[in-house]
Amino acid sequence: MFESAELGHKIGKAAYRAAVSDLRAALLGVQVDLYENRKIPVVVLISGQDGAGKGETINVLYEWMDPRFLSTLAFSKPTDEERERPAMWRYWRALPPKGRIGMFAGSWYSDPIRERIQGEISLKELDARADQINRFEAMLVNEGALVLKFWFHLTKEGQKNRLKALASAPRTAWRVTRWNWDRLKTYDKLQDVAGHFLRMTNTPWAPWVVVEGTDDRYRSLTVGQILLDTLTKKLAGPAQQASPVAPMVRVDTDGRNVLSELDLTLALADKSYAIALAKWQGRLSALVRDARFKGRALVCAFEGADAAGKGGAIRRIGAALDARQYQVTPVAAPTDEERAQPHLWRFWRHVPRQGHVAIFDRTWYGRVLVERVEGFCSENDWLRAYSEINDFEHEMNDAGVIVLKFWLQISQAEQLRRFQAREKIEFKRFKITQEDWRNREKWDAYQQAICDMVERTSTGHAPWTLVEANDKNYARVKILRTLCQRLEAELDAMPTAGKTPKRAKSAGK
Amino acid sequence: MFESAELGHKIGKAAYRAAVSDLRAALLGVQVDLYENRKIPVVVLISGQDGAGKGETINVLYEWMDPRFLSTLAFSKPTDEERERPAMWRYWRALPPKGRIGMFAGSWYSDPIRERIQGEISLKELDARADQINRFEAMLVNEGALVLKFWFHLTKEGQKNRLKALASAPRTAWRVTRWNWDRLKTYDKLQDVAGHFLRMTNTPWAPWVVVEGTDDRYRSLTVGQILLDTLTKKLAGPAQQASPVAPMVRVDTDGRNVLSELDLTLALADKSYAIALAKWQGRLSALVRDARFKGRALVCAFEGADAAGKGGAIRRIGAALDARQYQVTPVAAPTDEERAQPHLWRFWRHVPRQGHVAIFDRTWYGRVLVERVEGFCSENDWLRAYSEINDFEHEMNDAGVIVLKFWLQISQAEQLRRFQAREKIEFKRFKITQEDWRNREKWDAYQQAICDMVERTSTGHAPWTLVEANDKNYARVKILRTLCQRLEAELDAMPTAGKTPKRAKSAGK
Repeated sequence: MFESAELGHKIGKAAYRAAVSDLRAALLGVQVDLYENRKIPVVVLISGQDGAGKGETINVLYEWMDPRFLSTLAFSKPTDEERERPAMWRYWRALPPKGRIGMFAGSWYSDPIRERIQGEISLKELDARADQINRFEAMLVNEGALVLKFWFHLTKEGQKNRLKALASAPRTAWRVTRWNWDRLKTYDKLQDVAGHFLRMTNTPWAPWVVVEGTDDRYRSLTVGQILLDTLTKKLAGPAQQASPVAPMVRVDTDGRNVLSELDLTLALADKSYAIALAKWQGRLSALVRDARFKGRALVCAFEGADAAGKGGAIRRIGAALDARQYQVTPVAAPTDEERAQPHLWRFWRHVPRQGHVAIFDRTWYGRVLVERVEGFCSENDWLRAYSEINDFEHEMNDAGVIVLKFWLQISQAEQLRRFQAREKIEFKRFKITQEDWRNREKWDAYQQAICDMVERTSTGHAPWTLVEANDKNYARVKILRTLCQRLEAELDAMPTAGKTPKRAKSAGK
Repeated sequence: MFESAELGHKIGKAAYRAAVSDLRAALLGVQVDLYENRKIPVVVLISGQDGAGKGETINVLYEWMDPRFLSTLAFSKPTDEERERPAMWRYWRALPPKGRIGMFAGSWYSDPIRERIQGEISLKELDARADQINRFEAMLVNEGALVLKFWFHLTKEGQKNRLKALASAPRTAWRVTRWNWDRLKTYDKLQDVAGHFLRMTNTPWAPWVVVEGTDDRYRSLTVGQILLDTLTKKLAGPAQQASPVAPMVRVDTDGRNVLSELDLTLALADKSYAIALAKWQGRLSALVRDARFKGRALVCAFEGADAAGKGGAIRRIGAALDARQYQVTPVAAPTDEERAQPHLWRFWRHVPRQGHVAIFDRTWYGRVLVERVEGFCSENDWLRAYSEINDFEHEMNDAGVIVLKFWLQISQAEQLRRFQAREKIEFKRFKITQEDWRNREKWDAYQQAICDMVERTSTGHAPWTLVEANDKNYARVKILRTLCQRLEAELDAMPTAGKTPKRAKSAGK
């Protein structure tokens, strides 16, 4: 991996000056195109050994380009807002929007490499992290991003010399600490771990570029030239790169599916409902106030046809919660800050902190439901979304977030009845729009999309609960009961109170 | 303040039911108008005594209205990201955007009242906080927000009874803790402090509504009715309420002003520049790495005519900093999330954490410069902006953030020379737009705006430094020197290393 970066590459002063003038003009040119047309986000990872020129390279890039559209993202100790969320949350919130170049001084590679060097994770766990990273970067690239990963390399002797040089110059001496000298001792270990990890994450869509770090001019010129070339190519090419996705293969011999099997006549009389509601709301109250919940979090995702009763169900959950503990996020049209990011970004923003509850009225499944059926995104986009969504939920689960997903199913006849009823009640009239009536026409296409969604995204740790919702009483109680039972099972499976299991066991269903 | 809320108001079941049906329909109606037209943000403060029905009221409002456009903002212990910023930062980030109703369960009132009850602040300090709050709320209202402040009141006997009732019902027992019972002991003290504080903050633009909390139906109906009435009136009235502002009174007898007095011939030869640059950059390097800086933060605001050299100066500062420690924020057109907030919101977002540096390339002064001169906002808007800006900087200063503001002044002739030069250098060509040429035509109007700005916003803790910038060498060194001297003075004035003074002494100048 590092061999060609140990050849002692060097560039002379005059050659450098000559090259920089053209390079700088060209870089500024593509940067203008990039931000004026807000085409894509650019993620540049500046990583490698200490003393190999990471900071210097960032400074040179700032000098060459327009700093107004560059960001340097640095990651020291996670803040408590970050610690209480999935590990990738801090990187999601730092992603550059379309039109910007985000330079990551430190990234999703830092922790796995450090943890492996310190022996905190096994080689197998390291490989699992590589797989997770590959999927994350594939998502970024599929969403239109350019991902450029630089690794600055030095020989052991070279690193020692760099540190010495830095330490002896007054202006740079502050940068060399005990910590840096200690890194020399772990040089071989780092080479070994990083070499393996880089090979595992050297993908066609986000390849590594290993650059010899010894000579400042060589390093700067190389990074600048590669940034220019890839950016030029990317901006000239198709807006989006399509990576192959598993096609939908449907088995539909007898016309039966998970939705047709639901018994929509299930109902609950008002009296039984009142008793059951109070019982499960009380149970829910107690569960979210359980000391063990302080180290967990809860995400409830609601999907369903218009008028299926999502809002009413959400209110029945809300009534059992402390207003300070939960937030309902309605999913409407994305803002322009959200549109400038990968499609899951606007949901990552709302991932709850530990001890908190996030309820989504419509969710990240919009892409495989409305966007698919209405043709708002390409087939490739919604096909790949299944695994991107699974990854998202998997990362929440890894961090101890309990994810529940409810599909509220009503019949076409019941929907019509509710639409008509709503039109009669003045204060509900606003809820019925032309679009609602129009959506009814696509009923079958939606039913197919729902079945596909359930098949592809009902996982052990984030199962779909299909709710027979023709009767609101029945639906609400089923939702509350499912929620309570899952919460109970999750909390009971925890080893010790307050401790978050690395991988929370799913309660099944 | 609380007398009329001790009359034992009560509403019967039947009267309540009859009223609620109409109220609910009307509330939903105005809510639709509110969020469909994204007119204004609504800030509802739900405050008062424990057990007086704050949580219940929020739940009832959730029941009556569309929860998709309601948020409940709760504030427990500040996170470290919040603790390391000005006290108001956490409220700014929680402000509802236009079209939404944000219900504040806890607000900017909580801390001052608690601190006064516990004897941590004097009555005088409490009054200063009231003044600060009044100015903050005036800003919100002037920016178009509806601010509704509810205080739920109970008599001492009433509070005891409510707590007993809550504690005895299984579904609500969890809500009554030792902490709540302790509040009974401080009842009189709270009445005293809150009464005073409410009177001090009972302003024409954001008056308090004291509601008797004993009877659930009375309380809910009262809050709902007042919310409906004020919202209806606000939505029907003018979009923005203009509060009187101090007019500009100019003294211009002899044509001299702070800009005309600058000696733009000041220059520095390249050799002296190189020496001075290295010296001050080294000094700056050391200062931001000083242990005492860890408890402080630095904000550098850059303003200046086009081509005045802001970018170059910023790069010279950046070169002395660790990329992980600072962020350059270019101020361009606001995003739609930013446009849905008060004009200072997009700057509050970027207030740096402790130990960090935020550099702004153009700033919150846009409102009193380009927006004023180009007529992008009303005269009232830019006139009131001076004090809003002073408050913003004052709050940063209070939290230990060191604020420096640089105006880079060049002559018209020099600007023309630079424009022409830029057009010749290919990689700088993009920097000259039609707008830049057009802006030159308004030179005099801008000079006047700059003088007004300096006069109104050069304060002891956030003074303007006017920089003679016809010579880039001279300008850069003056900026770096000013920055270093101010930093040095600020750090030297700190009582003990690492400790943040409540009010950082200004370094003068």
